[in-house]
Parts: sequence; C-alpha cells; structure tokens
Amino acid sequence: MLEAVLAVDVGGTRIKAHWQDPEGRLLSEWVIPTPARDDPSDTIDAIVDLAIDGARQTPAGIRPVAIGLAVPGLVDERTGLAIHSENLGWRDVDLAARFRDRTQLPVAISQDVRAGARAESYSGSARGASSTLFVPIGTGVGAAIVLDGVVRAGPNNRAGEIGHIPAGGSTQPCMCGRSGCLESIASASAIRSRYNARIRDADAPVDGAAEVIARAGAGDRVAAEVWGDAIDALAASLSAADQILDLDLIVIGGGLSLAGETLLGPLRLHLAQRGSASTAVVGAFHRDLAGAVGAGLRAWELAR
Amino acid sequence: MLEAVLAVDVGGTRIKAHWQDPEGRLLSEWVIPTPARDDPSDTIDAIVDLAIDGARQTPAGIRPVAIGLAVPGLVDERTGLAIHSENLGWRDVDLAARFRDRTQLPVAISQDVRAGARAESYSGSARGASSTLFVPIGTGVGAAIVLDGVVRAGPNNRAGEIGHIPAGGSTQPCMCGRSGCLESIASASAIRSRYNARIRDADAPVDGAAEVIARAGAGDRVAAEVWGDAIDALAASLSAADQILDLDLIVIGGGLSLAGETLLGPLRLHLAQRGSASTAVVGAFHRDLAGAVGAGLRAWELAR
Repeated sequence: MLEAVLAVDVGGTRIKAHWQDPEGRLLSEWVIPTPARDDPSDTIDAIVDLAIDGARQTPAGIRPVAIGLAVPGLVDERTGLAIHSENLGWRDVDLAARFRDRTQLPVAISQDVRAGARAESYSGSARGASSTLFVPIGTGVGAAIVLDGVVRAGPNNRAGEIGHIPAGGSTQPCMCGRSGCLESIASASAIRSRYNARIRDADAPVDGAAEVIARAGAGDRVAAEVWGDAIDALAASLSAADQILDLDLIVIGGGLSLAGETLLGPLRLHLAQRGSASTAVVGAFHRDLAGAVGAGLRAWELAR
Repeated sequence: MLEAVLAVDVGGTRIKAHWQDPEGRLLSEWVIPTPARDDPSDTIDAIVDLAIDGARQTPAGIRPVAIGLAVPGLVDERTGLAIHSENLGWRDVDLAARFRDRTQLPVAISQDVRAGARAESYSGSARGASSTLFVPIGTGVGAAIVLDGVVRAGPNNRAGEIGHIPAGGSTQPCMCGRSGCLESIASASAIRSRYNARIRDADAPVDGAAEVIARAGAGDRVAAEVWGDAIDALAASLSAADQILDLDLIVIGGGLSLAGETLLGPLRLHLAQRGSASTAVVGAFHRDLAGAVGAGLRAWELAR
C-alpha cells in the first residue's frame, strides 16, 4: 500500500482535490462544483460529503494517512479554525473537527493563498528565493508573503490583503464598500464584468477574463482599455508591496496566471517603470493547483 | 572606568552622537551640523573628524569599546558598506574602515531607519510587538519592518522604501522623478515647502512643519489643507503597508513625531476609516534619537 494524503482546496465556485504521495506529487485529481446551501452549516456538511465521496473513487492501493484542507478567507492555521469567509458565508467553523469526526484522520487546515505560497516555495517557482510575494488572481486578488522559506501570516492572520489597496487612482466601487480597490479592477471577475458593462448591445458579452484578453489582442478597443486598467492597477499595488518588502520574486498564480506571458510581459514593463526592475515576475509552477498542493504538504507535516 | 560605545547618527543636516552605557542608556550627547563639502570623500573625512573630536570632549572615566554608526540611504549592514546616499552624495564607501583606521575600535554600520527600529524594538515603543512598522518622518519618510523582534532589510537592503509609494492620488512632483509620492506630500520638508509655496505675499513663510501645524490649529485655511493632505497621504500609505504586512503596531519617529497627538490622533482616525482600526499607532519612545540609540546597540553586539 502507498501512503498518501487527501488534499482539498475549497474555493468559492469549485473544490479541487487530489491524492498526494510522500514526495508531494499528485497521484490523481478531481474537481467538483462547490455546493451552495442557504445555511452555511449545510454548505460545510455538503463539502465534507463531496470531498469524502470523491476520495472513495480513487485507485486501489492507497492508504490515506492525513487530510489537508485549503480554505479561503480568514483562517487561523495554528488552531485549525476557519474564522471567516465572505464567499462561503461561514464564521468560526472548526472545519478540522468536521473532517476528523468523519474520517478519524489527522487534518491540517491552511488558508488557500498561504497554502499556494507554501507549495511554490517548497517545490515550485519560489524555490530558493529569499523574499517572495505569491499573488493568486481569480475571483479576487490575494497575496502571501514568504521570507526565507517561511510564510508570514501576521499576528491577526491577515497579511497579504493586497486586494483592497486603492490602486491606480480609480473610482470603481468595490464590494468592500470603498472604491478603487485593486480587486475591483484587476481580478478575473472584475475584468469580465467591467468589459461586459461597457460593450454596446450589438457585441456579445464574454464568459471570462481570458476572452477579454483575447479580444484586446485582436484590436477590440474596450477590451484593451479594461485589460490595460487591470495591468496598471496590478503594477501599482505590486510595486508598492515591493517598495515596502524588497521582493526578489513575484509569483502570479490563480486562473488569470494561465494567460502566461500576455499577463507577465506587460506587468514586468509596468513594474520596471515604477522602480521595481530588479524584481523577477514569473507564473506559478503549480498553476491554479498551488493551493491544493500546499494543503497536501501541510497534511504530510501532520502525518510524519 | 565605565565601558561605553560611541553612537553616531549621520543625518543629511545634523550629526547626533552620544556615549552609551552597557544597558543602552545615554551618558552624554551632542549634535553638530553635517559638514558639506564639494567632494563626497572630503565630506566623509570631515564627518570622521567631527565625530572623533566630539568624542574627545566627553566626561572622564569612560573607556570606549566600540563605535556604532547610523547612516542614511542604501546600506549593507552585513559588510558595513554605505552603498548609496542621495543626501550625502556618496557611493560604495567603506565607512567602517574609515572609523576603524582612526580609532582601532570595532565599528558597526547601521542604516539609520533600521537602527531606529531596532532601538524602538529593544527598549522603546515596540517592545514585545510581533509585527511593527517604524516610520521616521523628517526630511524624508522612511520605514523599517520588525517581525518577531527581527528587523527585515530584504535581500537588496531596500525594504521599507515607503516614501516613494504614490499616495492619495496627488500629482505633486517628487524629487525621484515620479509624482504623488508620499514623501513629496507628507515629509516635514514637504509640509513646509508646500505651505510656503501657497501663501500670499503678505503672509510670513514658515521655518518648519511644526509652524504649519500650529497655524492649522489657529485656523489658517492653507495650513489646514497642507496638513490635511499630509495626514491623508500618510494614512493611505500606512494602511497599504498594514494590509500587506498585518501590523499590530505603527511607531512614528523622526522630527515630525514631536508633534505628538496632533499628528497621531488624526492618523488613527484616518487609518480606522481605511480598515486598519486594530493597528496601534504610537510615537517613538526614543523620539528623534532612535537612530543613534540603535547604532549604539549594534556597537554593543560587536563589543561583547
């Protein structure tokens, strides 16, 4: 029997899970939609059910030794408490206990962004770097700080909240109640909705940011403006982070990072113009699976 | 004979020096104007002369065991190299060797802002804090990060460069070539010069930021606007730093910190409005001597 941990990244719209071997490699992976229930407690039960059901359908020969969970929002990784998630509607949930009661396995809880940073630092793009910002861009824009191989959560577990820094002098209203926040301009969702809000009736709306980027490349003026605003805002916030932290590396993750050089090229140029020329900017090695991989790494720490 | 270290903080306009006892207490202090020479090398010689001359006029009974220097700009504290200072015009100066050759004593070089942060963390306002930003405001605006008692310089010794983050959407030109930088709005020098540039001919210009603050308090509309812009810009930049780092404490130092609650009160209010209500904001315990005190602390590390 091969020992393995179950790694589960619970996102606002999708749950990504896989079995991970002792070297951190993925043995088999699956993705399911995040269940939406009116009562947050039912959502949690449904998440537990789905993750465990999915795990049952794995190849024979695997002996599970621990579970690693990555969840969004405010998380206390020391106590395993999911303190707050806007997207999933929960508050002070002892998620580790819920999984432990059902499986009798040790359970490690990570905040999803920090989990991704840990994966990139351990076996990804940030190996050996001394001062890294990991920035997953998807529904929101998050960040995690890695100094000398250690992810710094801060005394209140809220380090890396880069998404709500005012960026680029915009007046775009943000869900947080303020305006001009990075997330309201540069998240994948914001790029999609800002484009769809500005096109004429004759144009077809887009399904996602990738399509806005493609249209910008094909000469669509509105798409080029929306995409340019996003790059501008990202460069402003990342340069501010670099000036405060002295970064040798920025690793872009999340769904938007799949745009590759179409995103990274302009970002490097804009960062250089703002005085951050010496900071390397690369994509996440683990692509949009960094959070799940990092969740598994922490499960291995528990299992050993 | 009482063992003591000579602590010297070399600023753009003034050199602050003192003898420091083994407990980090100041035995006697003096201040001299920073010599200005056309050739940076002559400036350095003059600084060495003045510091050593000053040291000779100290009370009897002191046996010097080391020298601690704090200097502005880009400094490699590990090698003792003063890499670059805009104000003092030097580049790649082995300042430690210059002092060592003249005194045959061990010499520790600190960057002035980091030295101040070390002093506040060791024996000042930041004792016991886990995540602190020390922000001296004077001719410029600097910052140093202290995490769990350790000052983080960053891989390129440029962490804490908060002075050139665009703040508050201003278009004020900055000496660095960009515009809207925090330093161009909120440094003590900027407050003075922005006020003097806006008053009518009939009004008397001010000598420093303290006078602008006093006039704002007395109902001078222009002074109130200039002061309000400074508070706004400071709050924007410090809140951004808090969102990235998760700070439990901000310590304001430098000349402007002598304004006390006139500065700290409005700053706390503005920070709370920007979502940083849980971060404490206090003045530096060592007031504008924090840099010199920290320089002495590092000299003691060498001497022991």
